[in-house]
Amino acid sequence: MPGRLAGIDLGGTKVQGAVVDEHGRVLATEAASTPPSGGPQSVVDQVAAVVVGAVGRLGIGVGELDGVGIGSAGTVQMAEGVVSWAGNLDGFDRAPVPLARLVAEALGLEPERVRVDNDVNVATIAEHRAGAGQGLDDLIAVFAGTGVGGALVLEGSLRRGVRGAAGEIGHTVVVLDGARCPCGRLGCVEAYAGRSPMEWTVRAAVEAGRATALPGIQRRLGRTRLTTDVLAEALAAGDELAGELVGRAAAALGAGIASACNLLDVAGVLLGGGLADGLGDGFVRRVHAAVAPLLLGTEPPLEIRRTALGDLAGAIGAALLVHETPSPLSRRSRHGDALP
Amino acid sequence: MPGRLAGIDLGGTKVQGAVVDEHGRVLATEAASTPPSGGPQSVVDQVAAVVVGAVGRLGIGVGELDGVGIGSAGTVQMAEGVVSWAGNLDGFDRAPVPLARLVAEALGLEPERVRVDNDVNVATIAEHRAGAGQGLDDLIAVFAGTGVGGALVLEGSLRRGVRGAAGEIGHTVVVLDGARCPCGRLGCVEAYAGRSPMEWTVRAAVEAGRATALPGIQRRLGRTRLTTDVLAEALAAGDELAGELVGRAAAALGAGIASACNLLDVAGVLLGGGLADGLGDGFVRRVHAAVAPLLLGTEPPLEIRRTALGDLAGAIGAALLVHETPSPLSRRSRHGDALP
Repeated sequence: MPGRLAGIDLGGTKVQGAVVDEHGRVLATEAASTPPSGGPQSVVDQVAAVVVGAVGRLGIGVGELDGVGIGSAGTVQMAEGVVSWAGNLDGFDRAPVPLARLVAEALGLEPERVRVDNDVNVATIAEHRAGAGQGLDDLIAVFAGTGVGGALVLEGSLRRGVRGAAGEIGHTVVVLDGARCPCGRLGCVEAYAGRSPMEWTVRAAVEAGRATALPGIQRRLGRTRLTTDVLAEALAAGDELAGELVGRAAAALGAGIASACNLLDVAGVLLGGGLADGLGDGFVRRVHAAVAPLLLGTEPPLEIRRTALGDLAGAIGAALLVHETPSPLSRRSRHGDALP
Repeated sequence: MPGRLAGIDLGGTKVQGAVVDEHGRVLATEAASTPPSGGPQSVVDQVAAVVVGAVGRLGIGVGELDGVGIGSAGTVQMAEGVVSWAGNLDGFDRAPVPLARLVAEALGLEPERVRVDNDVNVATIAEHRAGAGQGLDDLIAVFAGTGVGGALVLEGSLRRGVRGAAGEIGHTVVVLDGARCPCGRLGCVEAYAGRSPMEWTVRAAVEAGRATALPGIQRRLGRTRLTTDVLAEALAAGDELAGELVGRAAAALGAGIASACNLLDVAGVLLGGGLADGLGDGFVRRVHAAVAPLLLGTEPPLEIRRTALGDLAGAIGAALLVHETPSPLSRRSRHGDALP
């Protein structure tokens, strides 16, 4: 019988689940709200309920799964299955939470059948194996939304790095001593393409008396933040400031991506997240136009593709963690980390 | 009998040879001038003569070598053993030169026993296996001299990239729309840390009437270019412009290195080339001070080490190409390139 894997994308508002086959093809999905209170155990219970619900749609039991993978917000120590600093998950912002062990207990599974990685890594695994990255065994994935995250696939495997921290293309310095980034540093890609820096720029422009439709559109759409639909509507209406914000974001992303490509010489780049999804292929073309003149290696040409799996990428990629080879334990042990 | 490998560092002024054991330990060396004329065949004859001379010091014949590796200036197609665009080698700047085949013929060796790679890659292999990079299986090597080159070792293997062009950290954009780089682009690391941009800055400063000891020191030392010994002497004399040039170079290198570390999450960085060798550990400390505040991952701390093998790195690393596993042929074929 072919393997069936369950994956969970654990975010601040939603627990998205999927059961997939070993190629990442979706067999069933299930979703629920993330409990806003009740601490880690109520989050774990909701994760378990979503897994049970998803496998129930297939008429099988949890014990028939090869395993369960979880893509989580926050900082993940993959070898230990532990999550910390996930500020949007209740109770995950204090002591580290042994998420893999707790979910295994809740589902009655052996602990080694549950794996956890961060949300950007699992979305990249999904896009590489079952989405826009198919056929590209060397790629950089860039997700621009509230922040700018990224991940690397090199020679077919996700690169996690020596500290489990690889892929942070959002903190490539593109302007030495440039604009303030939410991370506290200056001139990072995220200082131009992140949501907070865009909001700071809008506020400063409004205070300086500059005309812009952005605050009005944001109020009318009922958004508490400068979301991509606000930007898209202002762009469509010809708002000059919105055009500058998107142009700066594309230029910064382009420089960061081109520098990463000159360093790594990958086959392609995947562009996802709220900005790419909300502004669409036009934004991907703008980023491509910013990347192209900065590239050294051009034959074969670099491919830049928009991610394809949307909201299900995290759950699909989390499920695929279960069959990842070599296992994260054996890979980390090469660097001398203690095994759990 | 343990394997013995010959390596050649083929530069514009010197053909440096070494015979090493499989660990990169030097058993014999030999060097000669690079023929300034006579075309590719005279270069090949000199390479063969250096190999013969080096093995002769050990009292063995060329046939007893496991193979010969060559690190060459210019653009190298490794799988084919072909060198092109090596402007400082006579006759290598027109048609591509099948260097591996020609050297094999000159030495009477089977063609598959001769390998060629670019000079930066082989120096990095040497430093990783037998020099300052020992113990660091994930590292970035940066060589700052006339230009700024680099190479990557990831999980113990040199990364060549999809186009054979990986490692170009000198063309990381650190100032969007910044200073002109010799490559024609704007704001690259090399636009601040390369020799030509430094010379352009000195010329502009002198034309603007700024006081600096640099041109006088350069004349007195008989240098046609702004070499590192000129910079070092001016720095020691407290020359303000020299201090600015070195400070800008350290800041640009620091930003490029930190961005690469945030992306790749390596264990360490090796710093070599004329600037690091000529200015010494003080320069390495300045670069480290520029890198540190920009790093996201700090535990364990990033190591930044000065390269250790000096002028012999290229020859040692070229020799180690012979035993590299997996072979470059099998690695390239993964990307569907035609085999030679």
